[in-house]
Amino acid sequence: MNIVIIGTGNTATILGRKLKAAGHGILQVYGRDAAAASALAYELDTESTNYWSVVRRDADLYLLAVSDVAVDEVKQELQFADGTVVHTAAAVPLDGLRGSADHYGVFYPLQSLQKNSIRLPETPIIIDASDQATLHQLERLAHSISDRVVTASDADRLRLHLAAVFCNNFTNHLYALMEDWCAREGLDFTLLRPLILETAERVQTLSPRESQTGPALRNDTVTLERHLALLEEHPLLKELYVLMTRSIQAGLKPLY
Amino acid sequence: MNIVIIGTGNTATILGRKLKAAGHGILQVYGRDAAAASALAYELDTESTNYWSVVRRDADLYLLAVSDVAVDEVKQELQFADGTVVHTAAAVPLDGLRGSADHYGVFYPLQSLQKNSIRLPETPIIIDASDQATLHQLERLAHSISDRVVTASDADRLRLHLAAVFCNNFTNHLYALMEDWCAREGLDFTLLRPLILETAERVQTLSPRESQTGPALRNDTVTLERHLALLEEHPLLKELYVLMTRSIQAGLKPLY
Repeated sequence: MNIVIIGTGNTATILGRKLKAAGHGILQVYGRDAAAASALAYELDTESTNYWSVVRRDADLYLLAVSDVAVDEVKQELQFADGTVVHTAAAVPLDGLRGSADHYGVFYPLQSLQKNSIRLPETPIIIDASDQATLHQLERLAHSISDRVVTASDADRLRLHLAAVFCNNFTNHLYALMEDWCAREGLDFTLLRPLILETAERVQTLSPRESQTGPALRNDTVTLERHLALLEEHPLLKELYVLMTRSIQAGLKPLY
Repeated sequence: MNIVIIGTGNTATILGRKLKAAGHGILQVYGRDAAAASALAYELDTESTNYWSVVRRDADLYLLAVSDVAVDEVKQELQFADGTVVHTAAAVPLDGLRGSADHYGVFYPLQSLQKNSIRLPETPIIIDASDQATLHQLERLAHSISDRVVTASDADRLRLHLAAVFCNNFTNHLYALMEDWCAREGLDFTLLRPLILETAERVQTLSPRESQTGPALRNDTVTLERHLALLEEHPLLKELYVLMTRSIQAGLKPLY
């Protein structure tokens, strides 16, 4: 497909790389910041612009990889587009694109994308569309860059995004808290890296529920008390420790 | 070194495999459960016993890979040992082995070890010892199976264990909660596996503090409200969401 990429951030960059690698034609990159647009266009071996008036009108697909709040704004500028318009936002409804084009959809990458990462991580694509023909078009496009393609409604996409927040933002925050903790206590946080990786690798094949271990699960009150004693001067860490312990011990009972 | 392994669980098995692979002589496996001891001994190509009276007395090292509470119990049985006695427990003080032998120490693997795992994950070893000569002996032994070897006091080992609980038990529990959430909502949890792996891989080289993203960090109140609305009927998930969001937003300020 011939694609115009709107945006120059992490999502625009990584999806741009994947789409180009899959053989699609990247016709143009649009970015408000001319330098950023030019840099991404250079990498993708195409042209760039920061003027709506010169955005190509002959693309099959306009990929809006912009912030949630910018989707509506950009939509106004794309009134002319004949091609399919898609946004990449988890929390923006499909109908947020109504009026932008006859055919529109959602192309949400369920991954933490960082433009300065060397690897292109495996990235499930969650799609939705205004009509069946567009859905099939997006399905083919998604399959060209990912083995995992799923159609989901606005509500289900938001639920997957919530799960992504727990699995990425919250786990990373636990790492960050322990990075700070180690720094304060004069310990080397990098000693924990192999454990962090093993924890994530294990659930690539096993159920996390079945992989659970630790003092909370086995109700090892001696260790739990020793840990809590260490956290006396760290109320927020202590609160997290207590809540996570309670949640683990709630176990399979549907308490939550 | 010539080693007797006491215990047949995950730690005994994985350390046994690593020590054997590094060329050490595994003289014997002791286990209360004769079948388990026999199975591990078979794998390590050595003999086994479930009688203290026939435990070999000529080992250089007795590796106590048993539960925290069993360390003291086992110590009573090892009075005869000439070799160095070490335990593998994070939360058991070094002096928990006083009286077991002239030389004793700690050999704590900072990793989540599972005997049915196919891979032998990278495993930092945290050591301590009753005397300098023993410390050097354990350092050499640890280096034979790991690139990361650190000496730490009882207090620091417990602090590292606390960090391990956050980085392993608590993150795995977040995965488990989302596995349940997806099951309830009819979503496929395995879609989150690539994100989980990427999150852990990123902090192998980058600081988690600098890797933080998400609606909490950018104070995207629209998305935060939408997520909280989804959690109305899940009080525990909501409590976790609110606390983690507050903790992320506390940011670099030393609130905890």
